[in-house]
Amino acid sequence: MHHEQHLKSSDTIRDIVIGMSDGLTVPFALAAGLSGAVNSSGIVVTAGIAEIVAGSIAMGLGGFLAGRTESDHYTSELKREYEEIERVPEQEKQEVREVFADFGLSEHLQHQIADEMAKDKDKWVDFMMRYELGLEKPLANRATQSAITIGVSYIVGGIIPLSPYFFEHDSQTALYYSCGITMVCLFVFGYFKSKVTGQPAFLGAVKVLFIGALAAAAAFIMAKLINAA
Amino acid sequence: MHHEQHLKSSDTIRDIVIGMSDGLTVPFALAAGLSGAVNSSGIVVTAGIAEIVAGSIAMGLGGFLAGRTESDHYTSELKREYEEIERVPEQEKQEVREVFADFGLSEHLQHQIADEMAKDKDKWVDFMMRYELGLEKPLANRATQSAITIGVSYIVGGIIPLSPYFFEHDSQTALYYSCGITMVCLFVFGYFKSKVTGQPAFLGAVKVLFIGALAAAAAFIMAKLINAA
Repeated sequence: MHHEQHLKSSDTIRDIVIGMSDGLTVPFALAAGLSGAVNSSGIVVTAGIAEIVAGSIAMGLGGFLAGRTESDHYTSELKREYEEIERVPEQEKQEVREVFADFGLSEHLQHQIADEMAKDKDKWVDFMMRYELGLEKPLANRATQSAITIGVSYIVGGIIPLSPYFFEHDSQTALYYSCGITMVCLFVFGYFKSKVTGQPAFLGAVKVLFIGALAAAAAFIMAKLINAA
Repeated sequence: MHHEQHLKSSDTIRDIVIGMSDGLTVPFALAAGLSGAVNSSGIVVTAGIAEIVAGSIAMGLGGFLAGRTESDHYTSELKREYEEIERVPEQEKQEVREVFADFGLSEHLQHQIADEMAKDKDKWVDFMMRYELGLEKPLANRATQSAITIGVSYIVGGIIPLSPYFFEHDSQTALYYSCGITMVCLFVFGYFKSKVTGQPAFLGAVKVLFIGALAAAAAFIMAKLINAA
């Protein structure tokens, strides 16, 4: 049981890779979809930038506020547990015993554990928080930093599929370049995303690439259909 | 310690509310952004539909594949733990003792717990999975159903801010209606989203509304700036 309380640089790398590989997907698909409906790259760029701004705010700010809420929730539950072990200690001991009853330990041992654990109130509460309520102490700064990192990486990831549209006025031509660049990037970032989240890397890369390609193809076809209607 | 293994209808409601409130945000902001740059609702509708298709595929399929990966990971770790308690039982017992050492239990009690737990191999492995590795048994079907529900709800949520653009040709006028409808919906879905995820409901509703409004305003301003450049 190691509960690391410090920020690791690998966490930041993880957030960057997640934000970038996600950022590649939807802006890429949106740009591909619009390229199927309009000829001017200008509109694709405008829509793409609007999506990237909206997506990064929703993701970054949403993550930040969710982190704050989680942190508040933990603090209020912690306060409640401290109150409960003072107010109804026998009931709280019974809850400790129930955790171990679930793992088939004898009643005798259950009582011993609960009695011994009750001697140190901080550790008792820590145990209840983690194993009765399933709550880990949230790292408030970590959530904020993570949200900002993911949001910024989403912007950087989203710029990649849009970049050909900056230079090439004809959206159809730009689409070919965008597909080429983005497919390579989706695979590379999907590979690292899987590595840093502990999944099989090659398979993970193929999955990320597949999702991106499917989303882009579906958006392209839908946009074509709407335009033809 | 209750680990419910059956699907609850409230989980589905939770997924619907999450998908809808998220679906409202980015398509709304994208439509608002484009309305600041183009006059025709047609382009807004095309871009909006393309975003909804891309976003729901990325979210739904991404969630589905992530669920599958999590399930595979659990199965392989479970196999490894069963092998380890056969191959190095003393080391695994030591790991059980370490969990309880962290909670300040005496060495005598640590040994008793480890010895008694080792009598039932299934419960021993279950304990290691949950408390040493922090892994809960994933519900494979649950992940799939959840991903589909969130994806579909994202589509429904995304249609709401776009709907005025279907009927009103002038994108500026459509934007006013879209803002009105979406602000109300963001608040209502934000309220229920907070309710079902166990957060303070009114405050949560304000947060969801605030994120949506900020994302839309930022997208609108960015699109205006790009268009003016």
